[in-house]
Amino acid sequence: MKLYDLNAGSNPRRVRIYLAEKGLEVPMQAVDMMSHENEAPDYLKINPLGKMPALVLDDGTILTESMAICRYFEELNPDPPMFGRDALEKAQVEMWNRRAELEVAIPTAQCFQNTHEFWKDRLEQVPAWGEACKAKVFDRLRMFDAHMEGREFLATGDYTVADISLQCGILLGKAVGIRVPDELENLSAWWRRVTSRPTARA
Amino acid sequence: MKLYDLNAGSNPRRVRIYLAEKGLEVPMQAVDMMSHENEAPDYLKINPLGKMPALVLDDGTILTESMAICRYFEELNPDPPMFGRDALEKAQVEMWNRRAELEVAIPTAQCFQNTHEFWKDRLEQVPAWGEACKAKVFDRLRMFDAHMEGREFLATGDYTVADISLQCGILLGKAVGIRVPDELENLSAWWRRVTSRPTARA
Repeated sequence: MKLYDLNAGSNPRRVRIYLAEKGLEVPMQAVDMMSHENEAPDYLKINPLGKMPALVLDDGTILTESMAICRYFEELNPDPPMFGRDALEKAQVEMWNRRAELEVAIPTAQCFQNTHEFWKDRLEQVPAWGEACKAKVFDRLRMFDAHMEGREFLATGDYTVADISLQCGILLGKAVGIRVPDELENLSAWWRRVTSRPTARA
Repeated sequence: MKLYDLNAGSNPRRVRIYLAEKGLEVPMQAVDMMSHENEAPDYLKINPLGKMPALVLDDGTILTESMAICRYFEELNPDPPMFGRDALEKAQVEMWNRRAELEVAIPTAQCFQNTHEFWKDRLEQVPAWGEACKAKVFDRLRMFDAHMEGREFLATGDYTVADISLQCGILLGKAVGIRVPDELENLSAWWRRVTSRPTARA
């Protein structure tokens, strides 16, 4: 088994934090995006989209997509539960994980890709879309702040993959001036809570 | 229990097809987006994002996000399995469902929202982003075509939520000139296969 990783990547970080929370160790191999190793034929055989992470199982089966990789490990190692315990919790983790992705992490990534210098020669940027995404993220952070009133974690009483997704999405925002505004006190408290976990820098 | 629905919506359709495949009947209430009912205070109490579908359980608990709603029903009604049977299948369904969403359904929706007249007065459109998304979708359909070589369904031997997501994503593409090109024979065969299922117009 081998996990293809990108140290600075937001999605690979989701998997690393998840594995650290579960106490699982998986052999990793870093892929160098600076030298375009992820676009070389060898890596495209593993993931034709050239993205990390990718998990290659011992029989050669390949799993991509962070949440698919985490879900694979979750099925084999149910404790501590990071995707919910019963039908309702599982749905709530999925719901808040989706909202974290669709309303924060993905628009933040699109802002990064469409406005940041790192991507200038890697794709055709549409800066106006990047700015629209940034405005959307700040709007959505207010929704998350309202939801966090009186709650410790996003989806259930446990720290789950939904928290990891929001945490990594906001962390990526640093690159483009997105952060949790101080006046969003509930979300700021959550941010301090999740980023002070021992696994936050996994 | 009540499912708030939008007949023409791509995400509500995912849930309707899922329920039809499972043989489940859930009381539905249509929300009228043309008269902006989805932005009225009553509906925003159910989903502050003003989006459909939303499932309100008998105790008042609210679940949004299509896949969270489907996953809730899946946990309570495991047969026929639409999210995979074991750890590997569950991961493969998640992987291909994600790819269907991230590489086709979401960019198609962003193309629709940023270029179609329906959205002109509803949000600030960035047509250049819509066009970039359209090009991305056509590129990704080639990846799906290559994957479908010798396969009947997207993720496993069963028709799963991954097929539903790709099917509904491509269906939405009709509005903006996105369709499966004839030369993508594997994907075209899959498209005929899934759209001829009795549940396709649910």
